[in-house]
Amino acid sequence: MRGRFITFEGGEGCGKSTQIRLLYDFFKQKLENVVLTKEPGGTEIGLQLRQILVEGEINKFDEKAEALLFFADRRIHLTQKVWPALEQGAWVLSDRYADSTMAYQYYAYDKRLHKEDIEMLYQFAAGDFKPDLTLILDLDPKIGLQRSFQKASGMAHQETRNENRDLKWHENLRRGFLEIAQAEPTRCVVLNANQSVEDLHQEVVRTVCERFGLSWKI
Amino acid sequence: MRGRFITFEGGEGCGKSTQIRLLYDFFKQKLENVVLTKEPGGTEIGLQLRQILVEGEINKFDEKAEALLFFADRRIHLTQKVWPALEQGAWVLSDRYADSTMAYQYYAYDKRLHKEDIEMLYQFAAGDFKPDLTLILDLDPKIGLQRSFQKASGMAHQETRNENRDLKWHENLRRGFLEIAQAEPTRCVVLNANQSVEDLHQEVVRTVCERFGLSWKI
Repeated sequence: MRGRFITFEGGEGCGKSTQIRLLYDFFKQKLENVVLTKEPGGTEIGLQLRQILVEGEINKFDEKAEALLFFADRRIHLTQKVWPALEQGAWVLSDRYADSTMAYQYYAYDKRLHKEDIEMLYQFAAGDFKPDLTLILDLDPKIGLQRSFQKASGMAHQETRNENRDLKWHENLRRGFLEIAQAEPTRCVVLNANQSVEDLHQEVVRTVCERFGLSWKI
Repeated sequence: MRGRFITFEGGEGCGKSTQIRLLYDFFKQKLENVVLTKEPGGTEIGLQLRQILVEGEINKFDEKAEALLFFADRRIHLTQKVWPALEQGAWVLSDRYADSTMAYQYYAYDKRLHKEDIEMLYQFAAGDFKPDLTLILDLDPKIGLQRSFQKASGMAHQETRNENRDLKWHENLRRGFLEIAQAEPTRCVVLNANQSVEDLHQEVVRTVCERFGLSWKI
């Protein structure tokens, strides 16, 4: 049986990485085959691309170069990790996927690209394949950026290329994710990320169980 | 006045890099503003991408991932180096450009991709921009590969990902370049690369001068 593909999306500091890790730990108690992965950087080559993409100067390249690099990473991620795992029946959890490219490279940059171009790149890299469920963690960017900078100051955190953009950019980003969810209500569920880690985790588990008809409790 | 963009194309061991260097040295005696560049790797970020693309295992990723990476490199190359130089009136010589992506990722891989997809990626990355002149150095791959391996054995040469593919792949590649030239006879000129470095250089100079109405002699 084919596995399931669940993606987590959201702006900086929304708590995606924490929540996907908690869901992964929860799934591990229930399922044999669970894979936790991320974009960019879900593969060895992808990690090299991730470094190019998320470190360094804001203007090191433009949104078209970014989109091409993200889709290259995605193609490698799908063909080498996600699709083989799904073939083997795994539940695959990915910290970001294609909605991030649409939200970041299209919406956040004030729609300088054509939406159809991003869709055409998606079709080229992934065909008709889509996540079974996408959880969008929604948060006011003022709160998200504060969280993100707190995290950055506490450790050697170099992945600050996006954190350094202005608030309007992050507000466009948030609006982008919400529009994506509105356009695909069957696939996407928006969750309020302005609550405690534990409460949000409970909501994530409830949402996943409901969507896939599971009766698991935390 | 806008500069000129001249690209050199061809299979492994055809002598592109030698010839473009000779033309560059020749131009330097005649012109003030000449830029010698290459793809992949014409920029600092491009060099990181070049390493990912041309080193390592043949099957490290598929032709779709390759195409996306080459176009990412190209977008960065165009926006950061080629277009600014042309704006300033430079003559820009590039060792490989988009015809290589069509020849390698479409023709050499036995047309597993759609030609239209490569064209669509080109449009996304470069719009209607095209080289003013493309020189295709044509050579029997049996000779080219021999040259290429001789070169490789004489130095620490790690860029052998393509050299290691089979002869049929290289013959498809050669046919690809010839079909591209046939389809765009105004832009492309095919030169026989099975002649001495000096003779070929003379033919290159003659071709360039003819195309741009220059009366320069070697």
